[in-house]
Amino acid sequence: MNKVCAIPEKELSLLTDIISDPNRLLVGESIPEDYLSDEYVKETGKVYAVALPLTKEEIIQLVKFAQSVELPIIVRGAGTGLSGATAPMKGELVIDVHLMNHIIGLDEETLTLTVEPGVLLGEIQEFIEKKGYFYPPDPGSKHSSIGGNVATNAGGMRAVKYGVTRDYVREMDVVLANGEEMTLGSLNIKSSSGYDLKDLFIGSEGTLGITTLIKLKVIPIPKASLSAIVAFSNLQDATNAVLDILKHGVDPTALEFFEKEGIAISERENNMLFPVQNGQAFLLMTLDGDSSESIARRMTLLEETVKQHNLVELLPLTDPADEKTAWFLRDTLLTAVVNYTEQVTMDEVVPINQLAALYQYTKELEAESGLSMISFGHAGDGNLHTCVARGKVTDQTEWETKRDDVLHKLYAKINELGGLPSAEHGIGVIKKPYFKEMTADINIEMMRKIKSVFDPENRLNPTKLF
Amino acid sequence: MNKVCAIPEKELSLLTDIISDPNRLLVGESIPEDYLSDEYVKETGKVYAVALPLTKEEIIQLVKFAQSVELPIIVRGAGTGLSGATAPMKGELVIDVHLMNHIIGLDEETLTLTVEPGVLLGEIQEFIEKKGYFYPPDPGSKHSSIGGNVATNAGGMRAVKYGVTRDYVREMDVVLANGEEMTLGSLNIKSSSGYDLKDLFIGSEGTLGITTLIKLKVIPIPKASLSAIVAFSNLQDATNAVLDILKHGVDPTALEFFEKEGIAISERENNMLFPVQNGQAFLLMTLDGDSSESIARRMTLLEETVKQHNLVELLPLTDPADEKTAWFLRDTLLTAVVNYTEQVTMDEVVPINQLAALYQYTKELEAESGLSMISFGHAGDGNLHTCVARGKVTDQTEWETKRDDVLHKLYAKINELGGLPSAEHGIGVIKKPYFKEMTADINIEMMRKIKSVFDPENRLNPTKLF
Repeated sequence: MNKVCAIPEKELSLLTDIISDPNRLLVGESIPEDYLSDEYVKETGKVYAVALPLTKEEIIQLVKFAQSVELPIIVRGAGTGLSGATAPMKGELVIDVHLMNHIIGLDEETLTLTVEPGVLLGEIQEFIEKKGYFYPPDPGSKHSSIGGNVATNAGGMRAVKYGVTRDYVREMDVVLANGEEMTLGSLNIKSSSGYDLKDLFIGSEGTLGITTLIKLKVIPIPKASLSAIVAFSNLQDATNAVLDILKHGVDPTALEFFEKEGIAISERENNMLFPVQNGQAFLLMTLDGDSSESIARRMTLLEETVKQHNLVELLPLTDPADEKTAWFLRDTLLTAVVNYTEQVTMDEVVPINQLAALYQYTKELEAESGLSMISFGHAGDGNLHTCVARGKVTDQTEWETKRDDVLHKLYAKINELGGLPSAEHGIGVIKKPYFKEMTADINIEMMRKIKSVFDPENRLNPTKLF
Repeated sequence: MNKVCAIPEKELSLLTDIISDPNRLLVGESIPEDYLSDEYVKETGKVYAVALPLTKEEIIQLVKFAQSVELPIIVRGAGTGLSGATAPMKGELVIDVHLMNHIIGLDEETLTLTVEPGVLLGEIQEFIEKKGYFYPPDPGSKHSSIGGNVATNAGGMRAVKYGVTRDYVREMDVVLANGEEMTLGSLNIKSSSGYDLKDLFIGSEGTLGITTLIKLKVIPIPKASLSAIVAFSNLQDATNAVLDILKHGVDPTALEFFEKEGIAISERENNMLFPVQNGQAFLLMTLDGDSSESIARRMTLLEETVKQHNLVELLPLTDPADEKTAWFLRDTLLTAVVNYTEQVTMDEVVPINQLAALYQYTKELEAESGLSMISFGHAGDGNLHTCVARGKVTDQTEWETKRDDVLHKLYAKINELGGLPSAEHGIGVIKKPYFKEMTADINIEMMRKIKSVFDPENRLNPTKLF
């Protein structure tokens, strides 16, 4: 099937008036495959054209053009999303902002960094750390764009101590579906001056407006840090320890959980050994702070805490090589699982005290279905990434049927435990049915009405989220 | 003028069906004066009746009653608001939730405290600290209700380190203007699952829905703390020091600013002496943390930092009596000013690097007008409370004219500096004109439309905010 729309000559001419550079206006066969398909969404639709604006003014013109010819719009950044939110569905004009990738500057007086939406997370981290500051949100992909991070309210490893993207957006400029402009939030640290529109846009997955400029809060960089591995013989001990760690002031920056089975896949794929081989369930964490004394004190507190939970081994990663290996194996865990087996990776979250129950249920489903269930994730936030993996099931239909059945049961359990379908990746296309099932009708209804306030013609990412 | 509406017998009978206890349904002359007037709003209107529900179910019935007879509604908690948001304006049914004042319980597994909206802030702090936990938001009035704190997104002294009320609301139950119920947020620590409706309601000043239950995040209580006074000879040195303190990891919990002139009023009214008498501009701060060593190290860092800004005196408040006196004089500063002179107290916020410019301008206006301008506030957040005070102006008309002129100029300056009219008290009635002036038309338009989504008949607090 041809995935590209035929554009009437008059419309093409209007588009060329807005962006004359053919490298920044892709139509017909010049549209790369990457824009036409999606690795998470099977049934994608056509693309109208791909425009790569350099300025807010070009975005406004593109939006007005789309309005004039009644085109739906998808906004896209680095294309690293995990929920199909940028998949073409109905002949959309794709506005790819990845060329709007300038770091405008750091203001050391207000401790804010101004960036265009196409700047990559890794570029921000590198830029800011060189200057002695710290942008804490740390989603897995350093190649994701900050605009996408804002659109999904991306989380990452450090959320347990520092919060998520939402907590670091001070101000954002957006263009609405009719080309009107708004500034949301401000450089003021506090506000009780009207409705919080900024937080409404953060996490709205490109359905309310197009972000053109972002002012991020940065903080002083912590002066010291140390990672540690804690090994337990089972998940229940590990999650009990997590609750205790959170309660007793250990104050970890990252608090990652994974099982022997999961990290073993990463070990095999990467041909490396995890620094701790004892135990079945692991916590990998970092402590950071204002001095090595503070770290040492909290490391002692950690030791006292985990000892009460049938500790198998606690290894402070004082050897930089060990620290590097441990985090590399964790960082590449998902990639390793993806390379190892066909799977669907979830992004569920449950209240922190339900983590053990959720994990236990994945093991029940594993036994019942014969599929392989591999869980890892941000234990300190109650945010698991469960991979529903094909494992030893060879028959394609059997795999697909079992997979869908397991997903259905697992989301029902997450709902029962008071959880949510997405902690940090967004709903996009692939979690839409679960999102609907797990959200009260009135909440969905109000979200739809709010969508209509900002985008009455349902032009922006129209088939996503709801 | 009679401030109470005459209620048709049939309507009274319907109301009595909902609340039969005459102590909880106040009509006619049984309505206390407190409900009929407002100390911040001169031109208040009539009150229809005052209902004091005990349950969500009673609130739903009251709301449906109001809908059936087309009554506007005001929701009220402890009545400590500072912007006239609960002032009667057009014959409203007042729903006073202060009897819904139960602490439902602390869940130590999810670190959340469930409370009814009428629970007082001080009661929450006392309850939670006894159990070894900490609810950081700390608005001046401990007699304010948590429902009101949520409605205004109240801030307070500790915001510079711990954030504001918004940062501690995990979940809230609300009743909409048509009696429908919604749960906003959840016990999940992270979410990328749809629009953030919870943050839309926080700070909406009772215009979107009626809060009936709140689940608050609590944290482990800091193990150590120490306060200190830093004295400078002028404001510019003090604000330069504030920027440096924020940048260099001193990480203060509170960072309060006031002038000699202001604290002198508090000294006189309270017949007490501030522990530092040198200098003209003061910072009063607290450091808290996980150990006394951490405090000592950051106190040294503080000393090094303030020495670079023409320090006059740094006094760590190791003597508990000094600490108590210093904070008492700060806590009662506003009350002292109110007792001392007729005044209007503002609640403005500017980007942190504009604080000196704002303060400087208040001094210019003081010289120009002959009024007395007394500023104090949360320097670490850029949030000043400027009191525009009558001072030596004896003529009533002259005072009122000058006051309004000064307010007008000062809000214009705040706008020019990128500030906002309210950091933590809300817009209510008294800041409405300034809010309109200082907010982009499209932002106001979108807020109004969102109001219509949740409250299409404009029933909830209809004359406030916009």
